[in-house]
Amino acid sequence: MQNDQDYGNKLNPAWDEKGLITAVLTDAKTGLLLMVAHMNKESFELSMATKEATFWSRSRKKIWRKGEESGHVMKIQEIRIDCDQDTLWLKVIPMGPACHTGAQSCFYRLVEDGHLVTIPKDKI
Amino acid sequence: MQNDQDYGNKLNPAWDEKGLITAVLTDAKTGLLLMVAHMNKESFELSMATKEATFWSRSRKKIWRKGEESGHVMKIQEIRIDCDQDTLWLKVIPMGPACHTGAQSCFYRLVEDGHLVTIPKDKI
Repeated sequence: MQNDQDYGNKLNPAWDEKGLITAVLTDAKTGLLLMVAHMNKESFELSMATKEATFWSRSRKKIWRKGEESGHVMKIQEIRIDCDQDTLWLKVIPMGPACHTGAQSCFYRLVEDGHLVTIPKDKI
Repeated sequence: MQNDQDYGNKLNPAWDEKGLITAVLTDAKTGLLLMVAHMNKESFELSMATKEATFWSRSRKKIWRKGEESGHVMKIQEIRIDCDQDTLWLKVIPMGPACHTGAQSCFYRLVEDGHLVTIPKDKI
C-alpha cells in the first residue's frame, strides 16, 4: 500500500472521485474529537490561508466556512495529513459548539448493544 | 440539516453510496488521533461483536481486521457515532503502531506553508 504520498515533504492530497478529502477536527486544548467534514481544493486552500476551518458542504454543494452563520468558527492551530494523504487532522480552537445540535462535539452518543446512548453534556 | 438520525437512540448508520461509513480511531489512553478508515455493515458488526477494529479495505476490496497481518490489533474500548450517523469514533487500545509506515499514528506530518514536515517519532 506504500506509494509516493506516504513519504517525503510534497503536499499531494489524494482527492477522491468527487474531489474531496476528509477533515477530522479536534479541540487543540482538550483533544476532544469535535467533528468530521470534507474539503475540496478551494476550501482546503481557504482553510490554510484564513486559519479558519472551511469545508465543502456535500448537502448544500457549496463552500462552507464553519461558523459563517452560527459564529462558531473553528480557528486552526495546526494541520496534519495522514500517510496516504486522503485525510486531514485539524487541531482547532472552537469559538462555540461544533455540532448543529448545540453539543460541543458531534459525537455525543455512545453505540452500546446496538442502540445509542446520549452522553450528558458535561461528560462529552 | 436536522433529521431523524440526529436525535434519539436508534442506531441507523447513514451508509454512503458505496455502503460505507467513516471510522476515526483515537488512542483511548492518550487521545492521539491514530487513523481514519472505513466500515461497511459487515465490518461494523464484526467490530462490535469482536471489540477489535475491523474495516472494509477500499483498495483491496475486502474485510480487513486491523492487525490481521501485523499483529497491531486495535482493541475497542468505546464506540460513538456522530449527529448524522455517517462517522464513528472508536477509542482503542493499540497493540502496536497504527500506521503501515511504523509510526504510531498515520498523522506524522504537519502541513506548513504548502509543504509537509515530518514530526519526530517521540513528538507525534
